[in-house]
Amino acid sequence: MSLVDALQWRYAAKRLNGEAVPEEKLERILEAARLAPSSFGLQPWSLVHVRSPELRQRIHDAAAPQPQVIEGSDLLVFAVHDSDFYQQLDHHIRHTAETRGMTESDLAGFRDMIKGTLDGKGDHQAHLAWAARQAYIGLGVAIAAAASEQVDASPMEGFKPDALDEVLGLHDKGLRSVALLALGYRDAERDQGAGFKKVRRSMEKFVYRLG
Amino acid sequence: MSLVDALQWRYAAKRLNGEAVPEEKLERILEAARLAPSSFGLQPWSLVHVRSPELRQRIHDAAAPQPQVIEGSDLLVFAVHDSDFYQQLDHHIRHTAETRGMTESDLAGFRDMIKGTLDGKGDHQAHLAWAARQAYIGLGVAIAAAASEQVDASPMEGFKPDALDEVLGLHDKGLRSVALLALGYRDAERDQGAGFKKVRRSMEKFVYRLG
Repeated sequence: MSLVDALQWRYAAKRLNGEAVPEEKLERILEAARLAPSSFGLQPWSLVHVRSPELRQRIHDAAAPQPQVIEGSDLLVFAVHDSDFYQQLDHHIRHTAETRGMTESDLAGFRDMIKGTLDGKGDHQAHLAWAARQAYIGLGVAIAAAASEQVDASPMEGFKPDALDEVLGLHDKGLRSVALLALGYRDAERDQGAGFKKVRRSMEKFVYRLG
Repeated sequence: MSLVDALQWRYAAKRLNGEAVPEEKLERILEAARLAPSSFGLQPWSLVHVRSPELRQRIHDAAAPQPQVIEGSDLLVFAVHDSDFYQQLDHHIRHTAETRGMTESDLAGFRDMIKGTLDGKGDHQAHLAWAARQAYIGLGVAIAAAASEQVDASPMEGFKPDALDEVLGLHDKGLRSVALLALGYRDAERDQGAGFKKVRRSMEKFVYRLG
């Protein structure tokens, strides 16, 4: 199935049937998210994976009452790094030098460019907002990956991030949740959305072709 | 090629060789972006497609000096809708009703839910920031689609949005640019990045497995 066909097939399933996503499919979805690009390759976010039904029940009860949180088999939490972004930059430069067999001074220009961008964005809140956008690139890639695996994926923003972070102890890990993705298999009988036609603006209204 | 293999193959090519992306590949990438999900399906953003070398040269000179802007064959501008979000909601409800053969009153509960979310986010600036995140889901999906077509795609945030909006007249269209994606084919000889090993945190460092 082509990616476009897979994206036509997918929808944000609201009711899932409890069937487990096979391990190898889950790992490919996680790997796709890991490979998602980010500004300067900084990857200022992480994924949190929750399979335990008990833990998902606690998330459901405290922070995210959507049925797909418990009816899926896996929940992915997209979480930005709530730590000093200049320290994240230091780490990224060391990691890049190690990966590519370079020295940190080889990367001085690259470092200055990223530092200039961080400086230009302003304060920590602005850095967090920027990090969230990077996480959303990963969310898009993970949604595409799930569709290509014929796994239903339900993205969610409507949850209480502070309560979720509390349940999962994300604060202590330096993380803040920004989006959720429930994975599983649609329950077409109970999910009225399963029969709905997809609503998207037409290509003519969605794309401005300026020459 | 699997999506994970395609994502391993891709990188943010900085030098492109001028070869044109075939029409059918371009259309599939646009279609994938169109199918990308967004919060409540609202799609508060549009794509702007620029193929004309002259127009891309003007963008390059005024707003985005990266070589891939002119060395690619196509430039996609991800642009959020800078218009009243409650009007966008009205339009979305009408469009959903038409598409699904419903009445607007059938969708009253759905409408109230979206209105409550918009109210909760705050002012227009907050709505724009939220719209940008939705556009970034589309950016992630478009990047995955380009990779699966073996088309090089170079995402860019480092440009002058006001200058770019001016060149393309986006203000008059009610749009504000938030990200660019240059499409084309890598020039591996001139692009030192083509030979670099991809830098990503390891799976162990990227994914927190909490049970």
